[in-house]
Amino acid sequence: MWCHSCREEYEDVDAGTCKECYEEASETEEELKREIEDLKAKVSFLRLCSPIDPHLPASPSAATADISLHTWSSGSDCVVYAPIPAHKAVLMSRSPVFKAMLESEMEESQSGTIKIADVSYTVLQTFIHYLYTAEALLDEQMACDLLVLAERYQVKHLKVFCEKFMISKVNGETAVMSFAFAHRHNAGMLLETALALILDNMSMLTAREEYRELVEKDPRLVVEIYEAYLTRQVNTAPRE
Amino acid sequence: MWCHSCREEYEDVDAGTCKECYEEASETEEELKREIEDLKAKVSFLRLCSPIDPHLPASPSAATADISLHTWSSGSDCVVYAPIPAHKAVLMSRSPVFKAMLESEMEESQSGTIKIADVSYTVLQTFIHYLYTAEALLDEQMACDLLVLAERYQVKHLKVFCEKFMISKVNGETAVMSFAFAHRHNAGMLLETALALILDNMSMLTAREEYRELVEKDPRLVVEIYEAYLTRQVNTAPRE
Repeated sequence: MWCHSCREEYEDVDAGTCKECYEEASETEEELKREIEDLKAKVSFLRLCSPIDPHLPASPSAATADISLHTWSSGSDCVVYAPIPAHKAVLMSRSPVFKAMLESEMEESQSGTIKIADVSYTVLQTFIHYLYTAEALLDEQMACDLLVLAERYQVKHLKVFCEKFMISKVNGETAVMSFAFAHRHNAGMLLETALALILDNMSMLTAREEYRELVEKDPRLVVEIYEAYLTRQVNTAPRE
Repeated sequence: MWCHSCREEYEDVDAGTCKECYEEASETEEELKREIEDLKAKVSFLRLCSPIDPHLPASPSAATADISLHTWSSGSDCVVYAPIPAHKAVLMSRSPVFKAMLESEMEESQSGTIKIADVSYTVLQTFIHYLYTAEALLDEQMACDLLVLAERYQVKHLKVFCEKFMISKVNGETAVMSFAFAHRHNAGMLLETALALILDNMSMLTAREEYRELVEKDPRLVVEIYEAYLTRQVNTAPRE
């Protein structure tokens, strides 16, 4: 017989689907692709012109801004950066924390200024840009920093975005650090991935420097690793 | 042989794809579905809280509005409606016409008021709601009215949305009116669909009232119909 997809001959044992199902599947694929096109157009329509683009100079959207964000460090050396302009309506739509802050009589809604503590200027720029566009260029460090901000301001979509990126990067070397990070910031999917990687390489665990650090700083997390390991061993042991 | 999809037996002549291609196709479908989920999440993140929902009372987003829109009729009987609050940043992101209007020194940017002529209050509400959410409940009349506004303010995404809806509704009865409407408002896809329907029912054309009206009001459009009919006849005539 001839395959309708690859046009090669196939044997009885390699039989896949009948003609009818094959045609249905092709139609489904076409439909899904059309839906993707529609959704992409919707995303592009809904993206807002960002008041600050980390990769571009001044944006026209800044002219209508009604609030400004400042980075603010609890450390001693104080570098002053230009405030980042933004729109209350956008911040409130994206984050329930900003919404509560700006709807109330809190200092921020009165002064038109929001101070964001302990975050670098570049990270804050990228954060604000994401709230307008749902886009950010990530590397490992930026993904960590943005995830922390996303958790603080309850921007779920950004948190998932960063978490997925971190999951794609985690490996045997970085699993212990990722596990601890995921624990601190309630990143459930990353936690699972990192833990699975640690359990797959248990023989090397105690030799790692990060392991020793974790024992010092947060021994309860180390206990969690051993507990998971024990559970897995019990569950996979041959029955007698 | 047994089909891997429907589990029914099939004959050689009904052979579809081989096992390998079938498995690849299933993977593709899964991938496409995941992409759709991601895009839907992005759309839901990017939707803004609308300052006016035609189906809901007061919105919190109205509190931060910095511009208001008024309907304004060139007719004589004047009903005054509450202005519709909106945000310059959103209008400017969605429409190049609003952008030019609000960036310039035109009256609108000075007064914080935009007058929209010859449109009903409900249509204007639905229009503004769409600019924030990319969502609108359409019926035939609303689709026409919104398409006109979308063309006037160059909101391409909304124009396509209305046009697709109108294409799904056009039939032999309404084709002449849709053809004339599509012509007036540069709706290419609708024009093609309506014209094809007219050509399929040419024998009934001259009996229709809308046809007689069109001959009166815009005979050049009627000529276009006949020209298309002639071209089709020439192209499908059997060669001698």
